[in-house]
Amino acid sequence: MKTIYLDNNATTRVADEVLETMLPYFTQLYGNPSSMHSFGGQVGQKIREAREQAAALIGAAPEEIVFTSCGTESDNAAIRSALQTRPDKKHIIISRVEHPAVRALCSHLSLQGYKVTELPVDRNGLVDLENLENQLTPDTAVVSLMWGNNETGVLFPVEAAARLAHEKGVLFHTDAVQAVGKIPINMANNPIDMLSLSGHKLHAPKGVGILFIRRGTKFSPYLIGGHQEHERRGGTENTAGIIGLGRACELAGRNLEKENTEVRRLRDKLERELLKKIPQSRVNGDIENRLPNTANISFEYVEGEAILLLMNELGICASSGSACTSGSLQPSHVLRAMGVPFTMAHGSIRFSLSVYNTEAEVDFVIEKMPGIIERLREMSPFWKQAGQSCNVQ
Amino acid sequence: MKTIYLDNNATTRVADEVLETMLPYFTQLYGNPSSMHSFGGQVGQKIREAREQAAALIGAAPEEIVFTSCGTESDNAAIRSALQTRPDKKHIIISRVEHPAVRALCSHLSLQGYKVTELPVDRNGLVDLENLENQLTPDTAVVSLMWGNNETGVLFPVEAAARLAHEKGVLFHTDAVQAVGKIPINMANNPIDMLSLSGHKLHAPKGVGILFIRRGTKFSPYLIGGHQEHERRGGTENTAGIIGLGRACELAGRNLEKENTEVRRLRDKLERELLKKIPQSRVNGDIENRLPNTANISFEYVEGEAILLLMNELGICASSGSACTSGSLQPSHVLRAMGVPFTMAHGSIRFSLSVYNTEAEVDFVIEKMPGIIERLREMSPFWKQAGQSCNVQ
Repeated sequence: MKTIYLDNNATTRVADEVLETMLPYFTQLYGNPSSMHSFGGQVGQKIREAREQAAALIGAAPEEIVFTSCGTESDNAAIRSALQTRPDKKHIIISRVEHPAVRALCSHLSLQGYKVTELPVDRNGLVDLENLENQLTPDTAVVSLMWGNNETGVLFPVEAAARLAHEKGVLFHTDAVQAVGKIPINMANNPIDMLSLSGHKLHAPKGVGILFIRRGTKFSPYLIGGHQEHERRGGTENTAGIIGLGRACELAGRNLEKENTEVRRLRDKLERELLKKIPQSRVNGDIENRLPNTANISFEYVEGEAILLLMNELGICASSGSACTSGSLQPSHVLRAMGVPFTMAHGSIRFSLSVYNTEAEVDFVIEKMPGIIERLREMSPFWKQAGQSCNVQ
Repeated sequence: MKTIYLDNNATTRVADEVLETMLPYFTQLYGNPSSMHSFGGQVGQKIREAREQAAALIGAAPEEIVFTSCGTESDNAAIRSALQTRPDKKHIIISRVEHPAVRALCSHLSLQGYKVTELPVDRNGLVDLENLENQLTPDTAVVSLMWGNNETGVLFPVEAAARLAHEKGVLFHTDAVQAVGKIPINMANNPIDMLSLSGHKLHAPKGVGILFIRRGTKFSPYLIGGHQEHERRGGTENTAGIIGLGRACELAGRNLEKENTEVRRLRDKLERELLKKIPQSRVNGDIENRLPNTANISFEYVEGEAILLLMNELGICASSGSACTSGSLQPSHVLRAMGVPFTMAHGSIRFSLSVYNTEAEVDFVIEKMPGIIERLREMSPFWKQAGQSCNVQ
């Protein structure tokens, strides 16, 4: 059975070109870039090239790029550094819809004496900048807001938020793990101090990420050891991963237009057709301010897990908005923060596309989804109870 | 020119079998193991297998294995967790010859109010256990001693040290990055609480490591985010790296005897012949308690960097004991701690072998090294000055 992979916000396929670029660095050019001999030195040269490629994708300078092991490490490192370099300040501002890499860290920090403010979002998933402004205090060390939401694709106005933070002398970090490679990002023209990205969200392998640290931003390293990454991240470099990420960044730059035309068109088609064919369905998240590849759709009165199971039987991969994988029966914290009713939030599915998806795949999903939802609703006591009101619409 | 790679303590070649095992997980089975669909689930199954393979190599239970991004992360996580879980204790004991992943971290911690005791070593590079015992106080949170030294290969009596620590209720961690795969290790039969290992030192790729955490040991996670690694390390798993490391552990188990027979024989031959052919040379580190693959040899009155340069011209890769790569002109902190005279420490070369080295390679190095040292000594003013005393010997 062919797999139709519409779960690209969870992780992506490593691009063939990326793997090809990485391969020599496993068994042939396996030297340690810190070694004195030229066998290691030539790997160091290739890492410099990868740093330039990554910098180019986001309009940064190469020395502003620190390679890490994943988006979570980048997020952890950014927030902890902000607190370490401003030891007199004990307040952190995030949003209610941040990724666990930010939100779980901040929960942990709140047990250690830090005060954490979680900004609410409106029904479209957007934060209120005026509220952000009101929450900034002289005790605030850092604001961390994600650029693009992993579940809904909603884009936060991070550049404006960073300006507000700066007016009060507060550092600004953004988790841009979902945004990089999907929308144009130019760090040369915005005031954001630190930005996290993850390789495996843009067709590089898992196990490598980046923390952008703007030149002049004080930084306290998270991993302390050797002198790698200009003393900003100890540990032998993940050479093949870094070199692969550089190549993936170069490809992402070239595919950016396609993301915003072809991928967006397929996403819009999928969304439009599913809403048309399936009653009591709706899109979660602001329609305008959104990543081009993400559609988060709620199918009322059915369970996301059950939908995924039937999709899985057809080889279609997507995600449920609910946090089932962490063992919780609660629906997604993102949809709850947006006030999506429980009957809707439980049956939400995130479809996330990439440049590798085809029209035929999307058409297949459009063809199959109505039957899946209908079958599940036939078994749902809630659907039957709600039957009357549905017919009224 | 053929490369003769005798720098396996710096990093190793990824084994062909390891790369082969990893390959499908880049472009075919690229799912996220946390995903609900079976496309991701099958990757999760393979990670469980890798955890079993890694556990088997060190006599651990699979649930005692936490995959990390590198040895440095494992070391940082272990020491920080010990301090987090024992917040009333502010004392750390390490040795003067620890890897920067431990030593630089502890320097950093000493600026934050922790007291760090660095145990001295004797001229053979060994710690005095009686001294360790004397340094343990009710304020000691953790002792961290490396199993095998990266520069000299000297083995610390970590099992006895762990027992001493336990007698005083102190946690014991070992950086076993150089030891795993080179000597038999059975965590089921020793009292060590936490152990770090690194994939790229045993023919797995760079960018993946392990922290062994003994069942029952309280652990405070270092990377906080998702629920991965049983809530002990957030962040999407480096699937290909982990799966490769599992396979590498299995191979290392099979090659363990060869490490201690063939590799040891080649190392001994290299050492014996170089000492015989090159006057004023000596081995650094205890001859008995040593990794089977490492030879650290000082050639008096010459500079390590210059030796490496001439070796490099012949395609021979090794390391200098000096910390030149970190921009320091000081000789290696390990050799200084052992009291090796400056004239010896500056000219020290670490040869580190692996199962991939051949007798022909070792013979080539034995043939070429005397000429290299002679050439450099002819240019050395110190050698000429010392000429008289040399001739006496």
